[in-house]
Amino acid sequence: MLYAVIIAGGKGERFWPRSVRARPKQFQRIVTARTMLQETFYRVYPEIPGERIFIGAGEQHRNIILEQLEEVDGGNLIVEPVGRNTAPAIGLASCVISSRDSEAVIAVLSADHVVKPRGAFLSALSDAEKAAEQGYIVTFGIEPDRPATEFGYIEVAEPLKGDFGHEIFTVKRFREKPSLELAEEYRMAGTFLWNSGMFIFRADVLLGAMEKYMPALYRGLMRIRTSLGTAEEQRVIEEEFSGFESISIDYGVMERFDRIACLKPRFFWDDVGSWGALERHLKGDERGIIRSGNVVTVDSESSIVLGDEESIIALVGMQDTIVVKEGGRILVCHKNADQKIKDVLRKIAERGENLSYL
Amino acid sequence: MLYAVIIAGGKGERFWPRSVRARPKQFQRIVTARTMLQETFYRVYPEIPGERIFIGAGEQHRNIILEQLEEVDGGNLIVEPVGRNTAPAIGLASCVISSRDSEAVIAVLSADHVVKPRGAFLSALSDAEKAAEQGYIVTFGIEPDRPATEFGYIEVAEPLKGDFGHEIFTVKRFREKPSLELAEEYRMAGTFLWNSGMFIFRADVLLGAMEKYMPALYRGLMRIRTSLGTAEEQRVIEEEFSGFESISIDYGVMERFDRIACLKPRFFWDDVGSWGALERHLKGDERGIIRSGNVVTVDSESSIVLGDEESIIALVGMQDTIVVKEGGRILVCHKNADQKIKDVLRKIAERGENLSYL
Repeated sequence: MLYAVIIAGGKGERFWPRSVRARPKQFQRIVTARTMLQETFYRVYPEIPGERIFIGAGEQHRNIILEQLEEVDGGNLIVEPVGRNTAPAIGLASCVISSRDSEAVIAVLSADHVVKPRGAFLSALSDAEKAAEQGYIVTFGIEPDRPATEFGYIEVAEPLKGDFGHEIFTVKRFREKPSLELAEEYRMAGTFLWNSGMFIFRADVLLGAMEKYMPALYRGLMRIRTSLGTAEEQRVIEEEFSGFESISIDYGVMERFDRIACLKPRFFWDDVGSWGALERHLKGDERGIIRSGNVVTVDSESSIVLGDEESIIALVGMQDTIVVKEGGRILVCHKNADQKIKDVLRKIAERGENLSYL
Repeated sequence: MLYAVIIAGGKGERFWPRSVRARPKQFQRIVTARTMLQETFYRVYPEIPGERIFIGAGEQHRNIILEQLEEVDGGNLIVEPVGRNTAPAIGLASCVISSRDSEAVIAVLSADHVVKPRGAFLSALSDAEKAAEQGYIVTFGIEPDRPATEFGYIEVAEPLKGDFGHEIFTVKRFREKPSLELAEEYRMAGTFLWNSGMFIFRADVLLGAMEKYMPALYRGLMRIRTSLGTAEEQRVIEEEFSGFESISIDYGVMERFDRIACLKPRFFWDDVGSWGALERHLKGDERGIIRSGNVVTVDSESSIVLGDEESIIALVGMQDTIVVKEGGRILVCHKNADQKIKDVLRKIAERGENLSYL
């Protein structure tokens, strides 16, 4: 049976000031009229029924998730007591799900990706499930349409044998986010795909891989598994999590495991990592300005201005500028600098006052 | 006796969003802790007593003026029923004052200039009064320290004879705001001074010049003069004003009158015509950023960010940018484009909604 685990633990700092600690990016309407979490959920629901969709997130976002997803039962929230990156989170989810269904196949999805159309996604998921049942950890590798430097890459090798509706390859190697020069080379080579960060695997296969490559994590997970459904459960999870190494599933498992497959899907994918990425999803006016709210522009072009109805934003003589107002938080950022928005949050935190702006 | 008339009728549109119709620039704290009107008033008060200081302004600003200047009597407000530029306004003031004191000397001052130090100003005013008593209309001509293109110029000729503490010249010609090239030439020539827009004259001399060069205006003013203190006064002023041509004192009188003198004062002067001009008055930090309110900057320089305590403004990767938040109005403007802020107001007015933002 296919299960989905939606990872909704991100901080979304690069989407400040709309994204804040209390309501990060995945709980916001960034690209569509639904929040990114809702988009992710309804991408698989109802084909995967609500009782088989789990959400991994921090305790502080429990209420917001239940508000946004009526179909999710509180028992399907997999709460990390402290953030320890993706390996412990996915390990915990696999542990919880496999204790209910020992043959479970799990699709790990990020709550903040743009994927469309939905039919192509479900079709890819179905094929990936088949490969996963054969013991592969299956990734989705997106064919690059530009030399992106903000994604990791998967170098693929041989086609996988089997009756699949998609091209599926064995994986030669995972590659870090490249320089522009290297990204150009990858694109020319034709054997490098963007690592979309989605994984489909049998729970027992993943836990087996963790036993081999991350034995400390595995031992902790097994102790948690024993406690599930007992009065000790919460205490054990908290104890074990605090001791887990903070490590991503990519470093912990994917780069070491020998049965990784990469499916080349036919859907459009983007992780919308920053405000500047919005231009790939929203259409600007004839001067390349994407706007919302009450905005006046004079002699300006190629900019993103997101205001609200409570105030007016006037842009005069500006180019390549991102302006976002959200309540009492206003960002004015050059498009080339949107990776540095995190530094604003660091500076606010360092000051120690006005923490409500974070 | 010396009187002051402070012209406070400007719209201050280039200082939007702080300056709005209900409270233009001159009623705002732009450069110092006092409003520009207050700065202008206390530049001459108490050396000129309150009963000899008049304020020319629109009816809608009566209350704000009386709030800001406790020493001014409501009777010293010279209210223009409709804006008709400076010639009718100064004519009306001269008419009102000369009906009280036929030998009055009047200093016309703008409510939105920066002048310092005060002692140098009072000293120049005293000398200008002497020249005015000899029948001259006296201007203050500022020695250029840069090839400014945003000011008009006065080309001076011969030194005026007399026992003055300042250099005072006869005037050869008034010059429009020049191109940069011409402004450079003016500065090299040494005989071109910035027209500060302040005038000192005997009321009877100015009215005599108006009789000669602006006879229609003069006739209207004389009809107003006859009505002063009668029950008809307000009605007559309204009737006459609506028929006056809208014309500046420079075009109407100064460029035609043959007894213009130009005093070269020893004070610093600036008309602070736009946000960008603030850099001449406020010191930025080590990266050239002038800031007020709750502001965070990352990798930014050479900018002006004026916020408030109700919200936070973050500037990331920006240069040469002006950001001003005032209530629900937010401006993001390139420094080179601050002359185009007026277009924002035009666009808001054209839309016909949100007029409260003007």
